[in-house]
Amino acid sequence: MAKVGVLLSGCGVFDGSEINETVISLLALDRAGAEVVFMAPNMKQAVVNYFTGELVDGVSRNVLDESARIARGQVSDIAGIKAADLDALFIPGGFGAAKNLCDFAFKGPDCEVHPEVARLIQEIVAANKPLAAVCIAPALVAKVLGHDRSDLQVTIGTDPETAEAVASMGATHVSCPVDEIVIDKKNQIITSPAYMLASSISEAAVGIEKTVGALMEMVAA
Amino acid sequence: MAKVGVLLSGCGVFDGSEINETVISLLALDRAGAEVVFMAPNMKQAVVNYFTGELVDGVSRNVLDESARIARGQVSDIAGIKAADLDALFIPGGFGAAKNLCDFAFKGPDCEVHPEVARLIQEIVAANKPLAAVCIAPALVAKVLGHDRSDLQVTIGTDPETAEAVASMGATHVSCPVDEIVIDKKNQIITSPAYMLASSISEAAVGIEKTVGALMEMVAA
Repeated sequence: MAKVGVLLSGCGVFDGSEINETVISLLALDRAGAEVVFMAPNMKQAVVNYFTGELVDGVSRNVLDESARIARGQVSDIAGIKAADLDALFIPGGFGAAKNLCDFAFKGPDCEVHPEVARLIQEIVAANKPLAAVCIAPALVAKVLGHDRSDLQVTIGTDPETAEAVASMGATHVSCPVDEIVIDKKNQIITSPAYMLASSISEAAVGIEKTVGALMEMVAA
Repeated sequence: MAKVGVLLSGCGVFDGSEINETVISLLALDRAGAEVVFMAPNMKQAVVNYFTGELVDGVSRNVLDESARIARGQVSDIAGIKAADLDALFIPGGFGAAKNLCDFAFKGPDCEVHPEVARLIQEIVAANKPLAAVCIAPALVAKVLGHDRSDLQVTIGTDPETAEAVASMGATHVSCPVDEIVIDKKNQIITSPAYMLASSISEAAVGIEKTVGALMEMVAA
């Protein structure tokens, strides 16, 4: 049974992992026979008001605690996870990937990445294990790997500003519609736009299910 | 386009709506062409630590705010929703259905139901519109409708104690495996065990997808 790490960043599109993307991924992974290993960084996060989109002043939550809501309690601190524990890594989107796992949402290409997140992504790729990322999470992958792997190819969909930021971090950005995926065969990295472009949950599901399918093919290869 | 109300109770299995059940339902509803209308009660809820399962002392959140995480911000106070706005109602499970929408988790058959939740369930059934509920949510439906409708049939799976509690609220409990559904044709109520019995997300999905299918058939009839 393939062990696929799912790297969460909280619970909810505006300050954590996008919930629909995550659950669609989990269902596809389970149906493909994968065993999921949930992980998240043990760190504070800012909290968004989901009606206004504004930050809630003076309130913080813990990313690991909030991620446990999606994981039904079964989530590990990423600091304790090694590439050797996994056959592949999957990173759902949501602003948590760009606010908590790194701060791309605030600093763009000059962002910093949570050190344990950077470590695990580097370890996975160095171990020749496949990695998939959807929505805005490919920007995180570009930041971690772009300058060491000039042949890296990822997509965040079609948004010109975000694509330019991804390119400036050293990756090649490939435009991609919501129902398609970009496969970087050499680096074994699969990306898809999901809610960067999706206007409905079933639209998001098409690309995510293809992403999981391609990931599981690489695991089996 | 059929409008299906989805009644949320927070965000997370231990103190809100079960996230996997909810997203599986949303995906099935969207694929069936339904327009989803999210709603939740505007009320305080207790917060659970997802690692220990214990309540977090001195902390509360708002059910409507937390539900907005699943709904990507688009959720209405149930107080403003009428049966006339909807073609059907769907209630996912999770402890929120038994702690926030009612207090069945604490008081069993003697529980009280949030007045707006009770009102909308009664309105939907009185208007001859179909209603579906999964996991523990059928206990809520039994409490609201059981004593007025002695022919009401629902399932919460196979747990004898919960089944007995459902029966003592006036409904007939029908044992049901995780991959099946119970259809009460007369009252147009569909129920399925979901995570009352499921040991994996894909197992939960089988019954939930059947539930949504049966609900949409009733809407179209």
